[in-house]
Amino acid sequence: MTRNDSRLLSVEEARDAVLREAAARARPAGRSVPLAQATGRVLAQPVRAADDYPPFDRAVMDGFAVRAADAAAGVELPVIGEVHAGRPSGRGVGPGECLRINTGAPMPNGADAVVPVERVAFTTEGTNGPAAQPRIRLTDAVPAGRHVAPRGSIARAGDVVVPDGARIDAAALAAAIAAGAAEAVVFERPAVAILSTGDELVSVGRPASPGQIYDATGPAVAELVRALGGEPAALGIIADDPAVLRRAVDDALRRPIVVALGGMSRGTRDLVPETFAAAGVNWRFRGVAVRPGRPVGFGVGPGGQLVFGLPGNPASTFVCFELFVRPAIEALTGRDPSPLPRWVVRLAEPLEAARDPRPAFLPGRLSAGPEGAPEARPVPWGGSGDPFCLARANALLWQRRGDAPMDAGQPVGVIPLGGET
Amino acid sequence: MTRNDSRLLSVEEARDAVLREAAARARPAGRSVPLAQATGRVLAQPVRAADDYPPFDRAVMDGFAVRAADAAAGVELPVIGEVHAGRPSGRGVGPGECLRINTGAPMPNGADAVVPVERVAFTTEGTNGPAAQPRIRLTDAVPAGRHVAPRGSIARAGDVVVPDGARIDAAALAAAIAAGAAEAVVFERPAVAILSTGDELVSVGRPASPGQIYDATGPAVAELVRALGGEPAALGIIADDPAVLRRAVDDALRRPIVVALGGMSRGTRDLVPETFAAAGVNWRFRGVAVRPGRPVGFGVGPGGQLVFGLPGNPASTFVCFELFVRPAIEALTGRDPSPLPRWVVRLAEPLEAARDPRPAFLPGRLSAGPEGAPEARPVPWGGSGDPFCLARANALLWQRRGDAPMDAGQPVGVIPLGGET
Repeated sequence: MTRNDSRLLSVEEARDAVLREAAARARPAGRSVPLAQATGRVLAQPVRAADDYPPFDRAVMDGFAVRAADAAAGVELPVIGEVHAGRPSGRGVGPGECLRINTGAPMPNGADAVVPVERVAFTTEGTNGPAAQPRIRLTDAVPAGRHVAPRGSIARAGDVVVPDGARIDAAALAAAIAAGAAEAVVFERPAVAILSTGDELVSVGRPASPGQIYDATGPAVAELVRALGGEPAALGIIADDPAVLRRAVDDALRRPIVVALGGMSRGTRDLVPETFAAAGVNWRFRGVAVRPGRPVGFGVGPGGQLVFGLPGNPASTFVCFELFVRPAIEALTGRDPSPLPRWVVRLAEPLEAARDPRPAFLPGRLSAGPEGAPEARPVPWGGSGDPFCLARANALLWQRRGDAPMDAGQPVGVIPLGGET
Repeated sequence: MTRNDSRLLSVEEARDAVLREAAARARPAGRSVPLAQATGRVLAQPVRAADDYPPFDRAVMDGFAVRAADAAAGVELPVIGEVHAGRPSGRGVGPGECLRINTGAPMPNGADAVVPVERVAFTTEGTNGPAAQPRIRLTDAVPAGRHVAPRGSIARAGDVVVPDGARIDAAALAAAIAAGAAEAVVFERPAVAILSTGDELVSVGRPASPGQIYDATGPAVAELVRALGGEPAALGIIADDPAVLRRAVDDALRRPIVVALGGMSRGTRDLVPETFAAAGVNWRFRGVAVRPGRPVGFGVGPGGQLVFGLPGNPASTFVCFELFVRPAIEALTGRDPSPLPRWVVRLAEPLEAARDPRPAFLPGRLSAGPEGAPEARPVPWGGSGDPFCLARANALLWQRRGDAPMDAGQPVGVIPLGGET
């Protein structure tokens, strides 16, 4: 089988074309939202510490607040009271005294070290009861500053604690709250119009007539967009009718990113390229030397919209989404594009060759090998028309020459599916 | 510095205790939900193909449906009509005839192969116009079955296309829809009660009085639970008052998993262990040889609830969550527990030693090295009281002996944070 692939772009050329256009777009607006609604969003402005952290000299062990100058081994000190977390002590520590203190409590005036409860002997039974004043005997000397986190020792007021461009996950949420933030300035989610084309398609939940198949790709792309931080605008299934498609295209072009599924091939009903062109979209490429996904196209709309025409079947769509749509959404959410490939790992089982020299992105699994090192193996698939294979995969494996077999042990480029890592 | 760690469990012993209890719990109930609401949920029953896939013999190229017996090189065939995707052709292909066909369309009766449009010469100009019957000339012979996906060739009705125990992501969603499913039977999300204890804590958005700090850990744990597929029940900040805490504990124990934050140390206000014990919780361990996170405890409630007492600061909490709470939630959502560590990769920069021999789980970053291989490096941190370090990290690095430095190039165990991979 020979193919005339001379007019097809390489994956790298096609990605560069997308990245150039995406980088030229203005970042979306930033908007302040309560932190409870900010998870999954990307910071448009850094989170800064509202105050020093800790905001006061803080005990970091349970024990006794002492003056280090007093705290030689064997010294006995009366325990004159207790400091609780949450409120400053009304009482300071004078020479030859100590206060019981709990982790997290502010250090009382005069004290500059904490002796952990495990490092003292009680010379009067009990320290909490209404007994006569309890006393402790120190087993070791205690240097100044021991078991105290001084005010501002972790961060100073105004320090950046979460940088802009970071996606807010649980750890960033904890940092922002600890820093005293109640809101975060995040980028608006870019809207991504999704239209599925094809008279053979029927929506999930409806009965399928003879000759019809379910539109699996449209809902899956909406989920991919959502997971990446975009706002899917699902326009549904569009019939292979020029007027109907044109209305859907005009609607879609109200969003900064458009993903059209199906209708990019050379069939007599493949109306997508012309209809977008008639609506003012300038196709930058149509056709990439990649398997699956060759008919993929990318264009720029009259208002700068980034328009993707993807093949309609799930396998090709996932490949083209990862290669071309993902970096566009990342750029429009204020992030750097994920590297291609994300990882290079050892191939645990051989990759067979096809008769087609185009680079292939094949369903595979990334898992820990016998020593725990990440390794990848192909999963069986029935070609680009197999809508089930990716449910058995968690990654795409990059076979750079589709007609060259790869042996177990060789390094292989991997794109994880469905996660950020 | 010496420590009496003899009564502390190892990380492995403590995890085994959690996993044994979690495995003994009944799986949650399964419930049928529409696929649109099923993403992120775990399948309690496999998704099976409702019909053969494809449900009819399907053209997989744009071209001409022919009888292979006719299709020798150089043969000319009249194009007697066209088959569109979405509806069966009313007309069959007789000997010496062909029908124009589009990708995805059902094969017409009589035809058993598709000749791609690129592999024919048109002997009459145009094939769609109202011209006299167009004809094609084949450039090559075409074997039977070429470019046809026979009915049931990808899956047979009843085949499992997504196994039970799988979490529904975009790829599983595509597979389920393609298989004709409209609903999926998923496990109920296990409810996880979260209570933050400590008089020093104040909720995000409220003004902090002197001596107070923000409760960063409670909202972060809620986010970790949500990301894992649990249903967080945030009970808020509970004062260090025995009666108040007891009411909160009784409320918390209405859920199958309880996470109490703070109050697990040896301070005079550390009431959490006794209060849970008074409510019938049998502590299986209190104290694990791990840094940070040593005070962590695990117990079993009177109704079989899995109860975790975690140190209150974010760094210790994240470590203990990953080590102990995550496998419990995974088990109660019907999944196998994530392996510990998830990966072993090369250390790109040395890990310093502490004076403490306990195994340490330190904030780090997992990223692609010069050749693309995953590698890990530590990120600076200010100890367990630093609430900001994890926002700079995307992984925990496992230093198996905390007092033994690790050189660059050594293998290190890694737990990714905040994702599934």
